This record gives sequence, structure tokens and C-alpha cells, in this order.
Amino acid sequence: MSLLAVADAQAAILERMTTLASESIELTAALGRVLARPMYADRDAPPFANSAMDGYAVLVGDVAQASADQPVALQIIERVAAGAVPTHELRAGSAIRIMTGAQVPANAEAVVPFEETDEGQPNAQPDVVRMFQATQHGSNIRPAGEDMQAGALVLNAGQVLHAGSIGVLATIGAAQVPVFRQPRVAIIATGDELVDVGIEPNPGQIRNSNGYANAAQVREAGAIPIIMPIVPDNAEALRAILAQAVAEADVLLTSGGVSVGDYDLVKQILNEVGKLEFWRVRMRPGKPLAFGSINGKPIFGLPGNPVSAMVCFELFVRPALRKIGGYQQLFRPSVWAKLLDADLESNERRQYLRVIVKSSAEGLTAELTGAQGSGLVSSMARANGLLIVPEASRGIIRGEYAEIVLFGELH
Amino acid sequence: MSLLAVADAQAAILERMTTLASESIELTAALGRVLARPMYADRDAPPFANSAMDGYAVLVGDVAQASADQPVALQIIERVAAGAVPTHELRAGSAIRIMTGAQVPANAEAVVPFEETDEGQPNAQPDVVRMFQATQHGSNIRPAGEDMQAGALVLNAGQVLHAGSIGVLATIGAAQVPVFRQPRVAIIATGDELVDVGIEPNPGQIRNSNGYANAAQVREAGAIPIIMPIVPDNAEALRAILAQAVAEADVLLTSGGVSVGDYDLVKQILNEVGKLEFWRVRMRPGKPLAFGSINGKPIFGLPGNPVSAMVCFELFVRPALRKIGGYQQLFRPSVWAKLLDADLESNERRQYLRVIVKSSAEGLTAELTGAQGSGLVSSMARANGLLIVPEASRGIIRGEYAEIVLFGELH
Repeated sequence: MSLLAVADAQAAILERMTTLASESIELTAALGRVLARPMYADRDAPPFANSAMDGYAVLVGDVAQASADQPVALQIIERVAAGAVPTHELRAGSAIRIMTGAQVPANAEAVVPFEETDEGQPNAQPDVVRMFQATQHGSNIRPAGEDMQAGALVLNAGQVLHAGSIGVLATIGAAQVPVFRQPRVAIIATGDELVDVGIEPNPGQIRNSNGYANAAQVREAGAIPIIMPIVPDNAEALRAILAQAVAEADVLLTSGGVSVGDYDLVKQILNEVGKLEFWRVRMRPGKPLAFGSINGKPIFGLPGNPVSAMVCFELFVRPALRKIGGYQQLFRPSVWAKLLDADLESNERRQYLRVIVKSSAEGLTAELTGAQGSGLVSSMARANGLLIVPEASRGIIRGEYAEIVLFGELH
Repeated sequence: MSLLAVADAQAAILERMTTLASESIELTAALGRVLARPMYADRDAPPFANSAMDGYAVLVGDVAQASADQPVALQIIERVAAGAVPTHELRAGSAIRIMTGAQVPANAEAVVPFEETDEGQPNAQPDVVRMFQATQHGSNIRPAGEDMQAGALVLNAGQVLHAGSIGVLATIGAAQVPVFRQPRVAIIATGDELVDVGIEPNPGQIRNSNGYANAAQVREAGAIPIIMPIVPDNAEALRAILAQAVAEADVLLTSGGVSVGDYDLVKQILNEVGKLEFWRVRMRPGKPLAFGSINGKPIFGLPGNPVSAMVCFELFVRPALRKIGGYQQLFRPSVWAKLLDADLESNERRQYLRVIVKSSAEGLTAELTGAQGSGLVSSMARANGLLIVPEASRGIIRGEYAEIVLFGELH
């Protein structure tokens, strides 16, 4: 069994992943999905030069001499509501009353906001507006195409759609959005000792927490989990579930059954029905990781240990799912934070320690969640990052900065 | 119209928000939801002392002299599979073969992994195992309650459920989870100039992008958007939609119609049917923000301008929705990043500039997305943060650190 560095294992896995086909969905369902095609503006946005304020469209020369003491009076020749189109052009001495967002007259040079006129004042005359200030060319006019020009690339393929990009898609009229299909991931927990969450465990039994935690990780990775029934340590049952999973899912995920124990049938059956490799990765926590394919569908065998399973998912399965799902950014962001705890010793294996990363004006800090035993799923609930202690290094001294895989929101 | 500081406006809004009732949902639907009650471990986790490795449970004294040269032979008196319960206790000179996760015999003192025995070696005897190393008390035994002790508080009310906490909930048998109900938010875009995304705009018309962008922001805030039909600038239509929204939603959100233009009926109608205040907040971008209630339901009137609407949402509506939704953490995390662009001048208003925040070993950096005009929705699609230039300050000089409201993932 080869001993692989984390980055090498990640690269080897990613190399074998292929991205799913795309599908077209409603804009209202597109938040968080991954764009499958670059998107271009269908027209200028804004589509026409428009007013940034409620005010009067004017020719700049007409108000050049205007001041509070010596206002300039202009004839109001038209009133344009938002959504309406001006029917006049400005001529010397005239003004067109206009609302925010409305198209400005073709030859308008500026819009003077109401606040700089006698608009609404008791002594204002019906068809005349008095201007109290000069203005500049282009003032309060948003030119056509200021935001996006017709034909311009506005969003890239592989980009995750968040609120800002949804706004852009609405602006360019993308009522339907081309996105990558989300990978469907069958989650198979194995072990005679496991019972489902709703069931009272008997002596010797434990609840299947990995299935639920991994399902949540799958969803956080932008994929769709399918929780399969718990599989007892029984070859027939395992073969049957694997056959069902291959039929229903794009990716298979097992937990448990990849270590060296003789009740670990997973390894045996996987070797029998698929092409599997069992890797020892030079990391901690983490046991052997099984990786391969059945009928061309990728399969990952995670350790049974809750924390090891979650960490292995983070490091190996998540980037793979992201590639399958068409994401451009496959990895979590790394941050560098000041270690507030005691010194951390290096090890021959790369260590991933659960930490809480906080942000303040002094920068980012990291504190261990406490004991780092690989059975402590409660520590994963508190952590928002995995601090890396590089293998065969001089370790990390308290007060030094360390690299952290940030998987939750900063505190 | 009062001129409020951002923090004062936020505080005034939050003070009037009340949290919704809770509901009980399936564990598989709980990811991203907010826990409504503190959760306690129903039993020890692990529920029994168990083996961390595949190996042999032993008494420490029996192997004290063991070495590769002088192995100690122990009688295998039982074999325990995962999920099974040992029926024997250890006695001097005996070993019990045990799989990872299986309950250890009551008097077991350590588990010696297979790798430190002759397990699987060609010359191994059937009912005898030879030990090659000494071991320590507790070695490879996970004590009962190591992760969580029966009765211990494991998750707090107000906590957002992510994969780690889902794992904890599964462990404590929470098949049903008490969470806060998600606020339903009616999104009302107003303006004669607006057409829906799927419709070709006529001259003078623009597409309703705010409705979709705000709906996405509502969803990102953990609430449920209800996009109402576009309302023309017509009192009857607006009254009708507001009545429908009040009936269907917990919170109302309008965009457009809160400035001083005379086609801005929203203000007039809101004053007529509800208790409304119109605030000028000392910030940029941002126009007057309307805030109040109709029939006891909070209503927010956002500016019509796309970027102003999104920024006002971020700063005022999002924290309010989070409080209504029971979140403990109401605000986005702030980060401090080094400004890579030119110097930024201060203004009498607090400025929020769209930036791209990147993380590297040198720390966090921020770059402006480019022009900061409030019509530039495309800049919101590129940004992952809003850099704050405090009002009436000395500004921010290139190379200095600035506070940033981080709303997207770090690059």
C-alpha cells in the first residue's frame, strides 16, 4: 500500500473526475448553482441613458449662471414618468421634468435634482422651474451601457451564482439559466453495529451519524445526497446496495469497512465488483482511503471513524464533487491565522486540527476546539476550520501564523 | 427626515424584530436551519468503551515484557465483531480479538493493534496470538462518553446547523430537530418602467432585476422569498398587492418608490395602510430607507437602484431577517484586509465599496471591483465584500488595512 502526500492524492483523484452535463433551470432556482456557459449581455444595461435623480433634464449652458441669489427660470416643456419615453428634445431655455430611472431626452446634458430647484416651493410657478445652481455635462445622467455593454461577457462558466450574479442574470433577461447538473451521491454506511437515528441502540450498537454528517457535507458541496439503508456486514446485502447505488447515483460514498479488520467486507466486495485502490495518505486523522470506480462511477470509501470520515470528505471527496459539478473553484479557501494555543509538534503525517477561526481588527486568530481525538464529532460541530501542521516540519509555535482550510463562516 | 448613523439604524430596526416560533423537522432537512432549543446528549457517546483499532484487548501486565525478539503468547478466548457484545472478561494470559468500534470487555486495559501482533502471519497459531510490543493503560480504547457525556449540552439554541452539528444530532438520536420557522418575505418591485425577466422590454422599460437579486439575498439570509407580481405606479394595484403580501408573508420588502418623486406612490400608500418611517441613513450607496410595519408585520422599503437596494438589504434587512429567524449571529463577519487600490477619501457619509477579498500567506487583501456607481449591478456579481470607509475620517490610504463586511467566499 503506497503512502501518498495529501496533495498528490487530491491531484490523482481530480484527474479522474469528469464534469456532468448541463441542464436549464428557472432563474428563481439558480441561487448557489454553477453556471455551465459564459453569459453575455443581450443589450446595453441600462438600455438607455437615464436619470439618476428625480429632477429636471437641462442643457448645461442654460444654467451656467444660476445661483441661489440669481436663479435661472426654465420653461417646463414635458414631464416624463419612469417607464415613459420623452417625446421632446430640449431647446434653449427649456427643462424636462424627469423621474429617477426614466429615459432622458436625446440631447439632455445633465439632470438637476429637485433639491437644487424651486420644485415644491410655495412660490413655484406651474410651468416654470427656477434653477439655483449650475451643473456639469453628464451630471446625474447614467449613460446607456454604463453597467454592461451589449455583447459583453458578464459571467463565466464555472461561477457559483450568488445574489449579485442572480441580479445580473435578471438584467440580461436570463429567465432560464444553463447550469451543471448536481452530482447525485449515494451514501452507504456499513457495519453490524449501526442503527438508524430514530432507533434506540441496543448494547454494543451505535447510531449511524456518519451517514447524516456526510449527507450534509454532500449538500454543502453543491451535490444531492441519497442516504441508502444501513448495510450489515454481509456480502449479499452489500452487493445489492452497491448495485442499487450504481443505478441511482453519479458517485458512491461508503463509510466504514476499509480498514484491515476481517469483518470489513466493503474492501473485498468493492474489489470484486469494481476497480478499487486502497491508499494510505500521509495525514492525520485519516485511515486508508479507498478510491476507484464501479461501472465507471467514482466510489470513495471513507473510514468509519466520524471525524476521519468528515476530514477525508473535506480533503478528497469535496473537491471531486466540485469538479463533477462544474465548479471553477474546487478547494476551500485557505486563510492564515495566528495560533493562540500551545505549540504544535510536527509528525511524519500532515495533521489537520480542528480550530475556531475568529476575525478582529488585529487579524485572524485560531484556537483548537480542544481534544483532537478522531472520535470527537462534537469538535467538528464547533470548528470552522482545519489547521494544517505540515508533515516533517519544525511544527507551529504559539503566536505563529498557520494555514487553515476554512470550511465554516468566520466568527 | 432624520439623518441616522448606520449602526443606530441597525439597532433601531433590530429592537423591533421578534423571533418566529419553532417547528420540528426531519434531520435530513435540517442543514442550514437554526436550532430553536439547546440540545443535550441522551446518553454517553460513544455509549460504551470501544476499540479504536482492529486488534486484541489485553491486560497491560500480560504484555509488559513483550518485544519483537521475545514475543508474549496469549490465548484468544473470544472474537468480538462490531455491533456484538463481549461475553467474557479477560483473565491473565488471555486476549480478546476485537474490531474497530466494538465494545471492549469490561476489564480490558488496552487494545494492541494487529500490526503489533503476529495476526495474519503464516506461522500464526489458530487460538494463540503473539504480541511484539508492550502497551499502556487505555491505549486504543475510547472511553464511554469521551465525545459527549449523557446530559451534556452539545448544541446551543440559535446555532446554524452545518455538517458537524448534523453529525452531533444524529449521534444523540435527534431524528426530529426543533428549528425556528424561516421568515417568509414578500418581494414587491414597483415601477411602470419594470417588466419581468422573461419579457422583451419596450423602449423606456427595464427588466426587474431587483426582485430576483433581493429574493436571492433573502434565501442567503435563511428566509423564504415570495416574488410578487410587479406593481405599476398605481395606488389600487399597490394596495391590492400589499394586502396579499400581508396575508402571505412575515416580512414585506419593496424596492423603488421611496424617493421624493411624485410617481413614488409607495411612500404615500405605505403611510396610508401602515406605520412607516422614512430614514436617511448617513451612508453611500443608499437613498432613504423606509421602515415600519403593516398589521404588525415589518416592512422595508429599499431604494430602486440595484446596488443601493442590495447594499441596504445587506446592512438592514439581513440582520433583521436573521433575528426573526432566530439566529444568534445576526451580522456578517468583518475582516480586515490590506487595500491594494489607490487612496480612498472619506465623506460625510459612510461609504461601502465593493471589493474582492483574497487570502494568501501574506494575509488578506482587498481590491475595488472597479467603478462604484450605484447602478452597476455587475460589480455586485464580482464582489465578495463591502469595504467600509468610515464617515468623517481621514480616509484609507493604499496599503492600510480596512474593515470589510464579508458577504461571499474568500478567493
